[in-house]
Amino acid sequence: MTVDVALLHFPVLNKAGKTIASAVTSIDLHDIARASRTYGVARFYVVTPLKDQQALVEQIIDHWTKGFGATYNPKRREALEIIRLADTLESVTKDITAREHATPKMVVTSSKEWPKKITYKSLRQQLKNGKPHLLVFGTAWGLAPKIIEQADYCLRPLRGRTNYNHLSVRSAASAVLDRLMGC
Amino acid sequence: MTVDVALLHFPVLNKAGKTIASAVTSIDLHDIARASRTYGVARFYVVTPLKDQQALVEQIIDHWTKGFGATYNPKRREALEIIRLADTLESVTKDITAREHATPKMVVTSSKEWPKKITYKSLRQQLKNGKPHLLVFGTAWGLAPKIIEQADYCLRPLRGRTNYNHLSVRSAASAVLDRLMGC
Repeated sequence: MTVDVALLHFPVLNKAGKTIASAVTSIDLHDIARASRTYGVARFYVVTPLKDQQALVEQIIDHWTKGFGATYNPKRREALEIIRLADTLESVTKDITAREHATPKMVVTSSKEWPKKITYKSLRQQLKNGKPHLLVFGTAWGLAPKIIEQADYCLRPLRGRTNYNHLSVRSAASAVLDRLMGC
Repeated sequence: MTVDVALLHFPVLNKAGKTIASAVTSIDLHDIARASRTYGVARFYVVTPLKDQQALVEQIIDHWTKGFGATYNPKRREALEIIRLADTLESVTKDITAREHATPKMVVTSSKEWPKKITYKSLRQQLKNGKPHLLVFGTAWGLAPKIIEQADYCLRPLRGRTNYNHLSVRSAASAVLDRLMGC
């Protein structure tokens, strides 16, 4: 099983449905790195084309992997060490392809239904074939349609027993990883 | 199915294993309220005996349910409306008992194994009996043993395919609710 995670900050939607580049939220990095490390994700790619936001990501990673945070909380270091910074989703795919000698299947997540649907059960089974898969999560109001259109598969929205499904991306990532890779 | 969630800020453990009262983190309130609302939790109790921390919780709830946040993001209001503030776990149990005319079964969560274990599958089945259940999560380094000892059941730790299980309480709550109440 070879699963990578990408958290996109561009292109994503804002509240009005326009395509934007969102700001990096440090708690997303911590929470999704910890969940990725727990569930056995290979790398957690933080994707943003904005140089100032890349600098912020680097500062956070450095603090927890080399700075004071690394000795204060080694468990946090272990999680943040799997973060990689990327400009675009294309560069993530290239990186994984170089490492795995195979192009990863791209699986997008959304709070809406899209074509190319796949159930958690089917994907969980498919992951056992050992081929690389990249799970893509969007910040802000979710992934822009042009990213969703590029996907090989669209995971069905997480649902509870209500009509409300407005999870944070941190909560969604945790539940998705648990469904696919939890024991 | 009647499930309530409590997030304890006292008594919890610090990094050194001592019992402390932790500070409230606003992102815990948002993420766990949104997950609770998504999965159909009745009330999300934020438990702290500290008056200044209670004031902070009230400010956050007010902003998002009555203040600017309520009109800016009505979906967030819908989630934060289910938050209730409580001094102690005992007062949470009393509140649920008054509402449901039955004492809730207390289910604690932990990253460690404890006696009175219950699997997710068994608890998911048991919730269908309609009797009230209270899921208890700890902040900081987790619930103090005296809380765990009071429980009717201890949920098994969430695990992935690794020996690492250091999820944030926000991520853990999301995955636990998804396992018990996800569709």
